[in-house]
Amino acid sequence: MSRAYDRRVAEAGSPRLIAVLGVGVIDDPDRAVLCADDLGLTRGDGCFDATRLVTDTEGNSRVDHLNAHMARFQRSAAGLEVPCDLDAWHELIAEAVAAWTQPGHAVLRVILTRGRESAPAQPVTGVLTITPLDEAALNGLEGISVITLSRGHAADAFTDVPWLLGGIKSLSYATNVSAGREAKRRGADDALFVSTDGYALEAPRSALVWRIGDHLASTRLDGSGVLASITQVAAFNGATAEGVPTSYDLITVPELVRTDGAWLLSSGRLVAPILQLDGTTLAHDGAWTDRLLNWVIQPDM
Amino acid sequence: MSRAYDRRVAEAGSPRLIAVLGVGVIDDPDRAVLCADDLGLTRGDGCFDATRLVTDTEGNSRVDHLNAHMARFQRSAAGLEVPCDLDAWHELIAEAVAAWTQPGHAVLRVILTRGRESAPAQPVTGVLTITPLDEAALNGLEGISVITLSRGHAADAFTDVPWLLGGIKSLSYATNVSAGREAKRRGADDALFVSTDGYALEAPRSALVWRIGDHLASTRLDGSGVLASITQVAAFNGATAEGVPTSYDLITVPELVRTDGAWLLSSGRLVAPILQLDGTTLAHDGAWTDRLLNWVIQPDM
Repeated sequence: MSRAYDRRVAEAGSPRLIAVLGVGVIDDPDRAVLCADDLGLTRGDGCFDATRLVTDTEGNSRVDHLNAHMARFQRSAAGLEVPCDLDAWHELIAEAVAAWTQPGHAVLRVILTRGRESAPAQPVTGVLTITPLDEAALNGLEGISVITLSRGHAADAFTDVPWLLGGIKSLSYATNVSAGREAKRRGADDALFVSTDGYALEAPRSALVWRIGDHLASTRLDGSGVLASITQVAAFNGATAEGVPTSYDLITVPELVRTDGAWLLSSGRLVAPILQLDGTTLAHDGAWTDRLLNWVIQPDM
Repeated sequence: MSRAYDRRVAEAGSPRLIAVLGVGVIDDPDRAVLCADDLGLTRGDGCFDATRLVTDTEGNSRVDHLNAHMARFQRSAAGLEVPCDLDAWHELIAEAVAAWTQPGHAVLRVILTRGRESAPAQPVTGVLTITPLDEAALNGLEGISVITLSRGHAADAFTDVPWLLGGIKSLSYATNVSAGREAKRRGADDALFVSTDGYALEAPRSALVWRIGDHLASTRLDGSGVLASITQVAAFNGATAEGVPTSYDLITVPELVRTDGAWLLSSGRLVAPILQLDGTTLAHDGAWTDRLLNWVIQPDM
């Protein structure tokens, strides 16, 4: 079956795979699977997570940091009070990964919604997609130019306000996409969100990491609404194992420009050094980019 | 055709209608119409609008303030840079409304997304739904209890930051839904968002209107991120026609409690007087609620 699937998508020229929770892999990735009244569509009311899938020429796949991503997925679902059956998800992921044999790098995405407005008896909708990683993501290592964009709130805005869903990877992602478009419009590769009180927070789809001497730091999560990044945590775990000190802090944009280097980390693009921030050249030591990358791509410990 | 549809849903006991832009009315409202990689689902990247549809016992329908809702829909789409063909939408709405013959009050919703990630040749996805209005919405006139919830930003946070999509009715609505859940959890009927500098903004799905003497006011839109409310504008148009002065302003919560009355206005619940705000009883003159309702339900001028 997986071999037949592989042939089909190779013919279509656009290899993709979709699977539905409670159903399994769908033979046609272009088949409609969601109803018009799904709350994931009508309200962005659900959550998702995404990680990198690496498939060798034999068709064997490795999923990066799967357990950490699924643990975050479960936390997001809990924050939204949407039931998340991790066992069922792991079964679906295993079936989908077995069916996916296209060599190269892809994004494995899991999507969970509150289900249909008109069918409360069917409590949730779960969808999985596998899509080849795009060029831009694969070229991030060469370095990127970034502009700062206001996030509209202070760095402590998410303290004690769980209804604002700070740190939850919800489907309500339109401002993240819009900020990315604004960056492209201004000729930059990506945006960096800044709080109204001047602190660098995160990029629309990546975490911020900076280096001062031999010390690595990333944005403090408490109250900032910043998403806990699996890729950044993997990097810091690797750093700690090699005796490199790490911490979580808040940093202003002028301070960030004076560091010894800054990166945006994500499961898709992995480690992208920021070469320009609002047109100012940042320090960059390629050896540290390599170290971060090695920590990020090593299997879970 | 419309008659056959009517029989079918009557048998199912849950009358609903769905239609797809470029396709028309779908014979089975439970049929899946969205692909797993639709950006409306995966990113909440799209917009919607909703209004009330009133159908008489003959099956003839009236759509409240349709042109104003579609103008806002088009503004939302423009803010997201998603193409919106109003003529095509009006054709689809006409077909759907003609097919809908269930007497009573319903919600007509239009949903537009950026389309599929994997199929850029199909530029957008458009879906229309008609769903009977729920009991809670029909009972709003009796008055509601409301709690204040922080919106996490200042009242001028959306000035000159178009990427934050202030005032755009996007599909990224998860915090609105979450705030509604928080209100229910605390035993209230609805929430009222408050800025970090203390101003009452709007409810998750309704606009705020208050009265001081014979003067009506609603939240200032500039920079506040508040959605321009069609229902509130209809009320103010009616007020103006009768010589009742209106204005747009910012009001703090303590000031709101001391007004001569406050309401939440929306196309679904129409005019809901706030009887309790954070447990404090507000002034309420039923004659003003009736006036507001009359202005809201009169046809477009």
